Amino acid sequence: MTRIALDAMGGDHAPMEIVRGARDAAHELGVHIILVGDQEKIQRELDGDAAGGLISIVHAPEVVEMDEHPVNAIRKKKNSSIVVATQLVKEGTADAVVSAGSTGAQMASSLFILGRIAGVDRPAISTLLPTARGVVALLDVGANVDCRPQHLKQFAVMGSLYAEKVLGLPNPRVGLLNIGAEETKGNELTLAAYQLLKEAEINFVGNVEGRDLFLGTSDVAICDGFVGNVVLKSAEGLAMSILGMFQQELGRLEDILGRERIMHIMSGFKRRMDYAEYGGAPLLGVDGVSVISHGSSRARAIKNAVRVAKETVEQRLVPAIKASLEKEIGKGVDN
Amino acid sequence: MTRIALDAMGGDHAPMEIVRGARDAAHELGVHIILVGDQEKIQRELDGDAAGGLISIVHAPEVVEMDEHPVNAIRKKKNSSIVVATQLVKEGTADAVVSAGSTGAQMASSLFILGRIAGVDRPAISTLLPTARGVVALLDVGANVDCRPQHLKQFAVMGSLYAEKVLGLPNPRVGLLNIGAEETKGNELTLAAYQLLKEAEINFVGNVEGRDLFLGTSDVAICDGFVGNVVLKSAEGLAMSILGMFQQELGRLEDILGRERIMHIMSGFKRRMDYAEYGGAPLLGVDGVSVISHGSSRARAIKNAVRVAKETVEQRLVPAIKASLEKEIGKGVDN
Repeated sequence: MTRIALDAMGGDHAPMEIVRGARDAAHELGVHIILVGDQEKIQRELDGDAAGGLISIVHAPEVVEMDEHPVNAIRKKKNSSIVVATQLVKEGTADAVVSAGSTGAQMASSLFILGRIAGVDRPAISTLLPTARGVVALLDVGANVDCRPQHLKQFAVMGSLYAEKVLGLPNPRVGLLNIGAEETKGNELTLAAYQLLKEAEINFVGNVEGRDLFLGTSDVAICDGFVGNVVLKSAEGLAMSILGMFQQELGRLEDILGRERIMHIMSGFKRRMDYAEYGGAPLLGVDGVSVISHGSSRARAIKNAVRVAKETVEQRLVPAIKASLEKEIGKGVDN
Repeated sequence: MTRIALDAMGGDHAPMEIVRGARDAAHELGVHIILVGDQEKIQRELDGDAAGGLISIVHAPEVVEMDEHPVNAIRKKKNSSIVVATQLVKEGTADAVVSAGSTGAQMASSLFILGRIAGVDRPAISTLLPTARGVVALLDVGANVDCRPQHLKQFAVMGSLYAEKVLGLPNPRVGLLNIGAEETKGNELTLAAYQLLKEAEINFVGNVEGRDLFLGTSDVAICDGFVGNVVLKSAEGLAMSILGMFQQELGRLEDILGRERIMHIMSGFKRRMDYAEYGGAPLLGVDGVSVISHGSSRARAIKNAVRVAKETVEQRLVPAIKASLEKEIGKGVDN
């Protein structure tokens, strides 16, 4: 049975919603959950229901706060929930770690404790964006703000394997986020990356413009972490802003539609754009499974993040990335 | 009376919608419009109504097509509508040029014929995005894909003057599009640009994250042309995608609301996100007024682009940019 170390203290709604999500995951997904954090607080939330033995607790008295410097925090707080949970993976007690806490601290813990996969210069954070047809995995969205072409190639190989193994998309279409469809369009980075992606063992479909991103033109879209982060956050901001306008327009129809129906429409609409459906995404390029969940995750998102971790373990994503990138080592100079 | 050279052959709906827009502009805005393009075609569209002498024609037999290489095209086609219209500004026959044709060709014509303002390394294209509170001017959105910190500073000074003089916003808030609010966040480019913007004679409000962009946290947002272009096009794609979902949801209510009401709501909703309201934006940094209008502009957008040109001329934006950037020349090394 797959064993997931879940950071019980990470996220805006920890530990309550994390423990709830753990219980749902244990019941529904048939995984063993190791809740890592303040034992007393966790036990209070569990209230005697350990899902028939599928949930256990490992005590970790410290917590990394959201505003702490990630690297300093994990060096100083050896007994923090994120460090202890990641150690469980390293020593083989757990198969994966899941956290909704500080992304920087999780990234740093994973890097220092699990290490990088050989052939990966920089691990990448991916996110799923809703499109007209389904979802697109965008990466990197923040781990690496200044990238070289070679990094984008590694992101592409890892993103492709993630889409295939965890999202279940055969032969995923990988696009390069760029400012024009033609091969000759782009900045220095994307022009050089294009040439590397053409030669990579992926289904490279060429450049993807911002407009295509949300139309589902590709299953995976590659960019540096600065661009990815700005696109992701702009999209969130714009979606919120449009939802607000939508709610206003519907509000004017309250006499005709009734309050209840309007709320029903809005919630259906929000669900279509909801990150909680996917729960989280694995940090790609570290030597172990580390799933990053949204800071505002509630029980449903946590359960789904555990599902992602389970799939990532069982579909053997890390060994696949290792095998794929091993071949690249020493192939070319670092450009 | 302000005289606008309008490229009658540029855009998806040229010359019909351009000529219509010209007529509306002449009547409503009290400007003189010089329509530049195929004389016969323009006269056919005018059909004898030259707005009481407020519209004249300058013949230009050639057209730069959307798929031509901009620089090659304007070198080869000296009698193209965009080249001839820009020449009218250079020789003082017109005060501004407006086009909905190839942005690249307009950029190249403006650069070669009007020239750059001293102190400007790179002209910038700006666009207006709708926010929760009004609009934000984002620049650069495509002219410069690889920028140095100094370029972003020049964009900031020009963008601030544009917002003040053309958008009528006193003391506009200028933000740097970035991946975190803190001064220490960013990539190499934005980290260095932050320091330059702090010293610039603008109302610099610090970093603006993607999420803030559509909330109206600043009046102007500065970024390199790659990031700007990707953000702009992603936003367009996402907005289209959400509008589609909205229309679907409303469609389910057709029995209750009726078809006509649904269409009315949709059109009101679209209007709030409509570029045509603003028509166009001046190319910033060239030594003359050159207003870029959207390729899909119809009469209303063209009329509003003429309005922008008129304001830009009458509010003396170009002299203001000259005065402001002149002070910077020789101040520092090119970093």
